[in-house]
Amino acid sequence: MSLPLSLPERCALPEGFLGQLRERFGAALQTADAVRTAHGSSETHFATILPDAVVFAGSTQDVVDTVNLCRAARVPIVAFGAGTSIEGNASPVCGGVSLDLTRMDRILAINAEDFDCVIEPGVRREELNVRLRDTGLFFPIDPGANATLGGMASTRASGTNAVRYGTMKDAVLGLEVVTPDGKVIRTSRRARKSAAGYDLTRLYVGSEGTLGIITQITLKLHPIPDTISSAVCGFASLKGAVDTVVQSIQCGVPLARVEILDAMQIRAVNRWSKLDYAELPTLFFEFHGSAAGVAEQVELVRSVAEANGGGDFLWSNLPEERSKLWRARHEAYYAAVNLRPGAVGWATDVCVPISRLAECITATHDDLAGSAIPATILGHVGDGNFHVVFSLDPNSPDELAEVEALNGRLIERALDMDGTCTGEHGIGLGKQAWLEAELGEAVDVMRAIKRALDPDNLFNPGKIFSL
Amino acid sequence: MSLPLSLPERCALPEGFLGQLRERFGAALQTADAVRTAHGSSETHFATILPDAVVFAGSTQDVVDTVNLCRAARVPIVAFGAGTSIEGNASPVCGGVSLDLTRMDRILAINAEDFDCVIEPGVRREELNVRLRDTGLFFPIDPGANATLGGMASTRASGTNAVRYGTMKDAVLGLEVVTPDGKVIRTSRRARKSAAGYDLTRLYVGSEGTLGIITQITLKLHPIPDTISSAVCGFASLKGAVDTVVQSIQCGVPLARVEILDAMQIRAVNRWSKLDYAELPTLFFEFHGSAAGVAEQVELVRSVAEANGGGDFLWSNLPEERSKLWRARHEAYYAAVNLRPGAVGWATDVCVPISRLAECITATHDDLAGSAIPATILGHVGDGNFHVVFSLDPNSPDELAEVEALNGRLIERALDMDGTCTGEHGIGLGKQAWLEAELGEAVDVMRAIKRALDPDNLFNPGKIFSL
Repeated sequence: MSLPLSLPERCALPEGFLGQLRERFGAALQTADAVRTAHGSSETHFATILPDAVVFAGSTQDVVDTVNLCRAARVPIVAFGAGTSIEGNASPVCGGVSLDLTRMDRILAINAEDFDCVIEPGVRREELNVRLRDTGLFFPIDPGANATLGGMASTRASGTNAVRYGTMKDAVLGLEVVTPDGKVIRTSRRARKSAAGYDLTRLYVGSEGTLGIITQITLKLHPIPDTISSAVCGFASLKGAVDTVVQSIQCGVPLARVEILDAMQIRAVNRWSKLDYAELPTLFFEFHGSAAGVAEQVELVRSVAEANGGGDFLWSNLPEERSKLWRARHEAYYAAVNLRPGAVGWATDVCVPISRLAECITATHDDLAGSAIPATILGHVGDGNFHVVFSLDPNSPDELAEVEALNGRLIERALDMDGTCTGEHGIGLGKQAWLEAELGEAVDVMRAIKRALDPDNLFNPGKIFSL
Repeated sequence: MSLPLSLPERCALPEGFLGQLRERFGAALQTADAVRTAHGSSETHFATILPDAVVFAGSTQDVVDTVNLCRAARVPIVAFGAGTSIEGNASPVCGGVSLDLTRMDRILAINAEDFDCVIEPGVRREELNVRLRDTGLFFPIDPGANATLGGMASTRASGTNAVRYGTMKDAVLGLEVVTPDGKVIRTSRRARKSAAGYDLTRLYVGSEGTLGIITQITLKLHPIPDTISSAVCGFASLKGAVDTVVQSIQCGVPLARVEILDAMQIRAVNRWSKLDYAELPTLFFEFHGSAAGVAEQVELVRSVAEANGGGDFLWSNLPEERSKLWRARHEAYYAAVNLRPGAVGWATDVCVPISRLAECITATHDDLAGSAIPATILGHVGDGNFHVVFSLDPNSPDELAEVEALNGRLIERALDMDGTCTGEHGIGLGKQAWLEAELGEAVDVMRAIKRALDPDNLFNPGKIFSL
């Protein structure tokens, strides 16, 4: 299901290859079924495909040596982080080595004066923010899942506060990368901006491990705002909720987060997280700034919401209340999948110009209403980005076909509005045909780059596009 | 002087090529000396090198046809905009066709609700803002010169308010590009964010015309702030001025612009723009926001400035006063060059982590003080980015050698601080050796991309790196 147009053939490992790996890595090489399964399965609907072996890298040198051994033996190599990607991005579809980077989880430097830090790719975003707390700084990008920063960079992740702080393309200042020919390169220095040559940083961000393995990341940080205020507001209609966001942004309100959840998603969240929000189309807001600045923002947004059929704002100003609110939002995917016992999730995302967002969401809502498969809408509405999560019977080919059709219509709708087939999940396995539909011959330019930098097609083969 | 390590050889045009161009383009093909000279000379110290011919493109199809004719005849093609680049970026060092894009100056769409517009590459930034005025939106990036947006995208320009609004990499939402094989591609749709494949937008931004010709640009726009307030403040020392900026940023003040001018630069500006600022290290500020927000910012910055030896703030709150102030800043380059009659300018730029900025600027100031050649320091200090402008006797090889040495020491100093050899001017001809020093083997990755996308090396050959 949703596999790419043509997958490279899976070959048996060359004789002696596992022995070479074992000699170099000892216990950091693992081939037990349980480990391979953990590195071959997905949180979403994609079929489990096992790697032949898993190497747990502890250093850049480990990565270099793995790359060199794999290249010599022409064995595929797939970088692996928290395993929270959505579109089968880290599935070892051609077998080979799954290169687990979670042991590379050191924070190498925090340069508080420069608002940056240097970390290894296996650091997870929640851990990073815990470690930063004493500095008065934080790392804003929050895709929901407690992903690794390496994985977030590789899929060009964003999430709930991209509307204010941007995506991983904005957050990454520079990378250390091991290239397919085993070189260790640094894509930039630590200056805030540079015009020195091609922007390799942005090329690797979002390349899903197909061009190299990220071994260090320099990230931009932000000062923790003086005042943080969160609120929840229900609306009479989805359109009223969306219009509130669009109009607020058009008034220049620098919303820090603004999330939409449709009534079905609120029902799921209420059940899963034991909450009691009214089952209405709902916005979750967060405001950042000085006390006066936040007050100004809140006043404006309230008046806009009121004019669009919004109810009262339920405030969460204490840190523990805010955590509860956002934890509920972060658990929304699991909440949606568990609308049915034994279901698996299929999560899709599109992004459209915000002038078309209300139309896109309401048309999608109407389309979903015609299906018996439970589906929720939620999204980062300030960017024009929203998700649909389907709760799918894994044993029903009919349901699978129906979701495939619903997903296809959603993406066509987004492309017709000059939108994209993925705002933040990446292409992975699931969106390859749609990438062609979206960008046409530009995909040939991507292919030319891939062939130039990974001529043997060993780095996460079978992803983003067919070669 | 400052030429790349090895230039491709300049060949005579193949027989019949000019006839083919003439047949296709008629009067839009020009070969007169005056026109060729205008397309082969530079505002800085680089020697004039004439193209063989100039094509004035009026449409994407004109660009496609020029590319196809050049490719068939293996003739170099160099995109040309306003001619305001600093590092010889558009110099036709291998001859061939200079492709002038200034007639492609239409604004194709203004999508006010989506905060974006679609333009042709020959639109100049001042004209764009005049055309946007009625929408309540503006385009913030301001490199000083009234450059074309195509040129700004190609050099990854930034300028006075990048500290708040980012650089061209942040401002460009998508591009239409004519590739070296004559295809017209679009690098992205108009959604605010996307995770769909490699980030080709960011690859072309900053590639200085070496990978393709930009024929359309979708730009992000911003709401004109309610309140704009500008001020000038002199300081007892350069270090005090720099520390004021760094500390203000560390306090989270969202400065919209903050420019440093050393005492020599103030002297030049006073003479050239008929002003009477005290000849001290000086900051030019601009604050954007709501009335209350700006008041908050100003109060904080004033107290920081006072603690760092700053004098009174001279305010310019009326639009015409603000224009006068920023015109003086924009003319700073010409003011500096004209410190000596008959001089030519050599403008260099570096960018360092802001924690090292005071040290980098003061060490540079001390180094310049040991030279008799007039030189000024000015810069976008909020980013850690500053320029040195030398006022050079064009007929003195000794002065040239001395500036080359001063420039080299400046860049080495910046690289030692983990900075970059160019914050915003690009590599062009002048910084090629320094790009290698800065990024080492990463430059080989750039070369591989260049070879893959432009295998005949016809697009702005001899720039950024040797092949």
